[in-house]
Amino acid sequence: MNKSIIIVAGGSGLRMGHDIPKQFLLIAGKPVLMHTINRFVDFDNSLQIIVVLPKSQVDYWQSLCMEHQFTVPHEIAFGGETRFHSVSNGLAMATPGNLIGIHDGVRPFVSNQTLRGCFEMAAQLGNAIPVIDVHESVRQVKGQTSESVDRSQYRLVQTPQVFQYQQITNAYRLPYEATFTDDASVVEKAGFDIHLTLGNRENIKITTPIDLKMGELFASMPL
Amino acid sequence: MNKSIIIVAGGSGLRMGHDIPKQFLLIAGKPVLMHTINRFVDFDNSLQIIVVLPKSQVDYWQSLCMEHQFTVPHEIAFGGETRFHSVSNGLAMATPGNLIGIHDGVRPFVSNQTLRGCFEMAAQLGNAIPVIDVHESVRQVKGQTSESVDRSQYRLVQTPQVFQYQQITNAYRLPYEATFTDDASVVEKAGFDIHLTLGNRENIKITTPIDLKMGELFASMPL
Repeated sequence: MNKSIIIVAGGSGLRMGHDIPKQFLLIAGKPVLMHTINRFVDFDNSLQIIVVLPKSQVDYWQSLCMEHQFTVPHEIAFGGETRFHSVSNGLAMATPGNLIGIHDGVRPFVSNQTLRGCFEMAAQLGNAIPVIDVHESVRQVKGQTSESVDRSQYRLVQTPQVFQYQQITNAYRLPYEATFTDDASVVEKAGFDIHLTLGNRENIKITTPIDLKMGELFASMPL
Repeated sequence: MNKSIIIVAGGSGLRMGHDIPKQFLLIAGKPVLMHTINRFVDFDNSLQIIVVLPKSQVDYWQSLCMEHQFTVPHEIAFGGETRFHSVSNGLAMATPGNLIGIHDGVRPFVSNQTLRGCFEMAAQLGNAIPVIDVHESVRQVKGQTSESVDRSQYRLVQTPQVFQYQQITNAYRLPYEATFTDDASVVEKAGFDIHLTLGNRENIKITTPIDLKMGELFASMPL
């Protein structure tokens, strides 16, 4: 099955304490978003790549592409009011019938093994969500108090979340809800079972200065 | 209030794929356990330090101390069958009346700010558990399926977990249960409310090769 990837890069950079949006910060001298795109090209260079960016950042992105001689073909969709709306805009440009992956622009270290697992499972079962185990003890906050929960029941969710075309486009016809924190939660709301596959520990979201330091480290290692 | 810290270093190193137990692996040329002990000395050099080690590893640890000229005064308790039993053995050596912290030997990057927060809150409220927010979406596995949960209700638990002496010694008179994944879960079972304070992101448990790489990075940064 042919594949599309929608890379959502809507960050404004506030959490990082920088003026530059997180997706444009440099790791090993190159903007995070270019690292992210390159992961997909390395996995399958026939993939349709759709990058969702706030309209106000498109000129800047294109100047970065010139500066870094970044020539990977990709289409650009404009970001919306929330992540949900940004994904909708990206979906409108995806080739009907393709397997559709949706990925955070600030996750530049997804491994080929994770990608293979996601696309293969989604082709078979309709969708696939990469997750990793929780290594820490977990507590659930309940009002003023909290209680210990069994961490073996929980998984931390990564991206890309991959779906068959009809499933994800049907799900995104739902009206927006604030509880939609990722695409799996939208597809789940639409009534589909969600299938989990193994992610990779390096596949972190670059959201804090420590993450950026870890990014420098991961960029120097084989994935 | 005077303070004791029980540093539990019972790892056999299997998860890491090394023969050397994790607490003895080198970060920046020094065994992990020495980094960990040094964090507490840096925070308060009058603290009573109790290191819990498997009996079979004590000679090796002492030869490492010679080799690295590590002269920080500390007492040694022998590890037990499970973490619960190891902590019990450490508690038996703690000075009655002290605030008692219990810390993983393989968490060498706890910050002074976290330590201050833990000991101050425990002095006031009876106990304090350092936690951090979950940055990822979270799913709860339920049999063959899984469902999206509200990540804002969950916290990832770190150490040191700090308790007033009577509270922790009373709790450790309970019979062992397999659900005791940390000291807070024991104290909670004994009927005490658990109080949460802010941990620090660098305060990771060194359990995989990636963690060891991150450790090299954190060792090169100010905490």
